[in-house]
Amino acid sequence: MPRRAQFKIPKIPEMTVRRLSVYTRCLLQLEEDGVKTISSQELAERFSLNSAQVRKDLAYFGEFGVRGIGYYVSGLKAELQRILGLDREWQVALVGFGNLGSALFHYKGFAKQGFRILAIFDDDPAKWGKEVDGVQISPLRDLPREAKARNLQLAIVAVPPESAQEVIETLAAAGIKAVLNFAPGRIKSGKDVRLKNVDLSIELETLSFYLAQANR
Amino acid sequence: MPRRAQFKIPKIPEMTVRRLSVYTRCLLQLEEDGVKTISSQELAERFSLNSAQVRKDLAYFGEFGVRGIGYYVSGLKAELQRILGLDREWQVALVGFGNLGSALFHYKGFAKQGFRILAIFDDDPAKWGKEVDGVQISPLRDLPREAKARNLQLAIVAVPPESAQEVIETLAAAGIKAVLNFAPGRIKSGKDVRLKNVDLSIELETLSFYLAQANR
Repeated sequence: MPRRAQFKIPKIPEMTVRRLSVYTRCLLQLEEDGVKTISSQELAERFSLNSAQVRKDLAYFGEFGVRGIGYYVSGLKAELQRILGLDREWQVALVGFGNLGSALFHYKGFAKQGFRILAIFDDDPAKWGKEVDGVQISPLRDLPREAKARNLQLAIVAVPPESAQEVIETLAAAGIKAVLNFAPGRIKSGKDVRLKNVDLSIELETLSFYLAQANR
Repeated sequence: MPRRAQFKIPKIPEMTVRRLSVYTRCLLQLEEDGVKTISSQELAERFSLNSAQVRKDLAYFGEFGVRGIGYYVSGLKAELQRILGLDREWQVALVGFGNLGSALFHYKGFAKQGFRILAIFDDDPAKWGKEVDGVQISPLRDLPREAKARNLQLAIVAVPPESAQEVIETLAAAGIKAVLNFAPGRIKSGKDVRLKNVDLSIELETLSFYLAQANR
């Protein structure tokens, strides 16, 4: 078997990136609580993290701790936000405006982190031309034009499973570089698009795991 | 600072449990493709995992690999499903039937993994007594009765942030042991309830990280 792993896996593990998001939220909470500095041990204890993991994850990006002090809460938060690309706005396309698409459009968390949904696409002609909070719903064939006009960079896909593959190919062709996909099933993306599949049942499974353990 | 970590952190890290869900999906896919056995290296390479991590995660639960063969795909899948509590059905309550609640109710992934939503609760009197695919919508005050009658074990919470804390306390009082919460904000749960907060913006942030890196 060829050993290609070193070329396929990005240098920073995705789990590390995910944890940076978690650390950022912890630091925001500490900042709200008026905490100025914190050690990796205290951070770990307060938020049930692993302090060695915290240090290892941060070490990918530099030396943030100060001996005898720990981390400066606001400074580290700002640094992590910059690393995560949260120090700027991203223009987002939403494809699929059913129940889930509508819920995601109104989800407060996205805008708070700088993700602005500026265009909505749906295949239902009855929705075309309508506006939701100032954002117009268009047919998917308008995507290339809209993507250019609004400088769309990211897309959120909330279409039925059977349409997802085609939608993701259309997004790629329009130059969208990253896609968050909520449609279940096996979707493939070309190498020019970073595709992240959200599987909501994984979240429930961590709960059933603990329930199953408790019942044994 | 007291060292309480050993009492607070469960023995199996949550990230390990999360990865078991991922491995289960990989094994299902291999099974569909007719693959009978696979080594941890092949598994890692095919799904962009870390083979040492795979072995370490599985080692918490036993010795699954066979020297010179690797893992039996169907056998390991069934074993992981059992560990994750996916070899049985879970009775689930859904609280909040707005856009997100409705989307979650119709989300195909839950039922596929054995999570059955058997009761819906909402604070809008206009929805009370209505049925969705045979499941009745009730006021939250009916929760204790319904929880007992239908043996509800898990709850999915999709209410506005300002109602989430009260809802989670009501669920705990009704004996629900595990809650998947989609409402953003700081929610606390007692020690009798396993609370999992889903933060959808974390998923977008892993994408903005890679976009930001690419733009540097």
